[in-house]
Amino acid sequence: MKEFQLIESFFKGRGPVRRDVTLGIGDDCALVQPAENKSLAISCDTLVENVHFLADMPPKALGYKALAVNLSDLAAMGAEPAWMTLALTLPEADEAWLTDFSAGLFEIADYYGIALVGGDTTRGPKTINITVHGQVPQGKALSRSGAKVGDWVYVTGTLGDSALGLDILRGRQQASAENSAYLIDRHYRPTPRVLAGQALRALASSAIDLSDGLMSDIGHVLKASGVGATIEVGLLPLSAAMRDTVPLELGLSYALKGGEDYELLFTVSEAQKGALETSLGHAGVKFVKVGQICAGDKLKLRHEGEAFTPLLDGFEHF
Amino acid sequence: MKEFQLIESFFKGRGPVRRDVTLGIGDDCALVQPAENKSLAISCDTLVENVHFLADMPPKALGYKALAVNLSDLAAMGAEPAWMTLALTLPEADEAWLTDFSAGLFEIADYYGIALVGGDTTRGPKTINITVHGQVPQGKALSRSGAKVGDWVYVTGTLGDSALGLDILRGRQQASAENSAYLIDRHYRPTPRVLAGQALRALASSAIDLSDGLMSDIGHVLKASGVGATIEVGLLPLSAAMRDTVPLELGLSYALKGGEDYELLFTVSEAQKGALETSLGHAGVKFVKVGQICAGDKLKLRHEGEAFTPLLDGFEHF
Repeated sequence: MKEFQLIESFFKGRGPVRRDVTLGIGDDCALVQPAENKSLAISCDTLVENVHFLADMPPKALGYKALAVNLSDLAAMGAEPAWMTLALTLPEADEAWLTDFSAGLFEIADYYGIALVGGDTTRGPKTINITVHGQVPQGKALSRSGAKVGDWVYVTGTLGDSALGLDILRGRQQASAENSAYLIDRHYRPTPRVLAGQALRALASSAIDLSDGLMSDIGHVLKASGVGATIEVGLLPLSAAMRDTVPLELGLSYALKGGEDYELLFTVSEAQKGALETSLGHAGVKFVKVGQICAGDKLKLRHEGEAFTPLLDGFEHF
Repeated sequence: MKEFQLIESFFKGRGPVRRDVTLGIGDDCALVQPAENKSLAISCDTLVENVHFLADMPPKALGYKALAVNLSDLAAMGAEPAWMTLALTLPEADEAWLTDFSAGLFEIADYYGIALVGGDTTRGPKTINITVHGQVPQGKALSRSGAKVGDWVYVTGTLGDSALGLDILRGRQQASAENSAYLIDRHYRPTPRVLAGQALRALASSAIDLSDGLMSDIGHVLKASGVGATIEVGLLPLSAAMRDTVPLELGLSYALKGGEDYELLFTVSEAQKGALETSLGHAGVKFVKVGQICAGDKLKLRHEGEAFTPLLDGFEHF
């Protein structure tokens, strides 16, 4: 099967129709029309087989997740999803695989209204690279660098589920059938907090998405903002499935060090705390205060008045 | 070496400074400010080791070429280069390799004023994916679909050099030292016709860049435009190095079927022929008429009044 036939049959003409796409897949470039008075947010993420996903990951989940992790970066900036390109490297043109992969990709693309405008299909070790484009009103984007001493630290959703789900898939943990299904689904199909990110534009002093684990990711906020933080480990949101499956100390460790939750961590000043309850409530996502920004450059973990040391090793690409 | 250190040390803070980059490498997304009244052109290309480049390709040339092939897509739309993201997958964090690769990348990035605004570095089989962004006045972009019956077909530069250079590298052809150096350089360091593409915006009825070989690429123009074409093979521009190295018939075959020239093929109406000479002259690139658009949907190759059949197999990714 030739490259162009492959691209056209599975990807062309699918996904949401956007009026700002002047020229989609099929020319040397795509042409899109950026909105006036908005900035463009751009991010790209690569998923490599046996590095970022297991070889037996269902292709539909892989298509979903490959876009979800990119949308999570847009969410962390408060940007509205607009367009994406897909660079797909495959050892062979497997129709069944492409059918399922594209079904998962377009399921989430349709939901968030992001159009596939271009791409490249090449032969090689299985690798998925997506570059996403979002738009955000000029000067209103969230960043990692605005956290101030005294700001409160919040997270959305529950933490650690994805890493525990992965350990269940790998046979390193065991759970009931129901809890396994829930936790594996959290690993395979993370929910990018796109609406929450947009609701936070006027409220948060900084934001980041949790891809490498809270302890690692909050470090980027602290470094970029020139501050420290204290996390009250007992406040970290754990799912019922997590609490059912592992002892509390291990659950808190998953929440601190497990990667791929794709929840948002953000900071809010004391003055904005009230407005936060109202605005983020409309975004339909749970959020909870887990700590506070302080002077210095250290991250302190506290649990029941003592320093807390998590049990697990971190997650690092290299 | 950790992912973030790796990215920062070789890629952050390098390349041209653009005032429209609000936030560069180091947050969840880059933020850029699109120009008013312009459309955004987006393209991505992936280079996989042993598929798109030989494992012994010098990393500096690879860095140069990885961006050049993407800039060529912008050139074919008449777009001005603006921003890029780089997704780099490497089996190991090799400092010497990264030093040379980034030197080649920024050499051409600086020349064309394109800023690196984001990326992703992952461990895996060596793969380079670049997504480029260019800007073009609204409604003025070139496309593949505007060729009309009677339009003249032109190409820039000389054709086939890159494929012959690759065959010399592979030991399939032999040339003098001087010619080898020239032809291998054409393979390693193609010149994207960025200024020519911009000059053609007001003149050409269609355009495409020659990445897979003239015969393959003109097919996209003919299909998108609903026309046929006749190419006078004897008019195809061959370099002196090509003419010195192989018999004419083989040289013409390289010009027709050899890929990776990254020259532009474009069509111009009879009425615009005069203006073309003036405008494209300023872009400092040679160009020559090689045929004409005709009714139908076929590509006809003629040489000295007869049909011409090239000698080589084509180039196809899958």
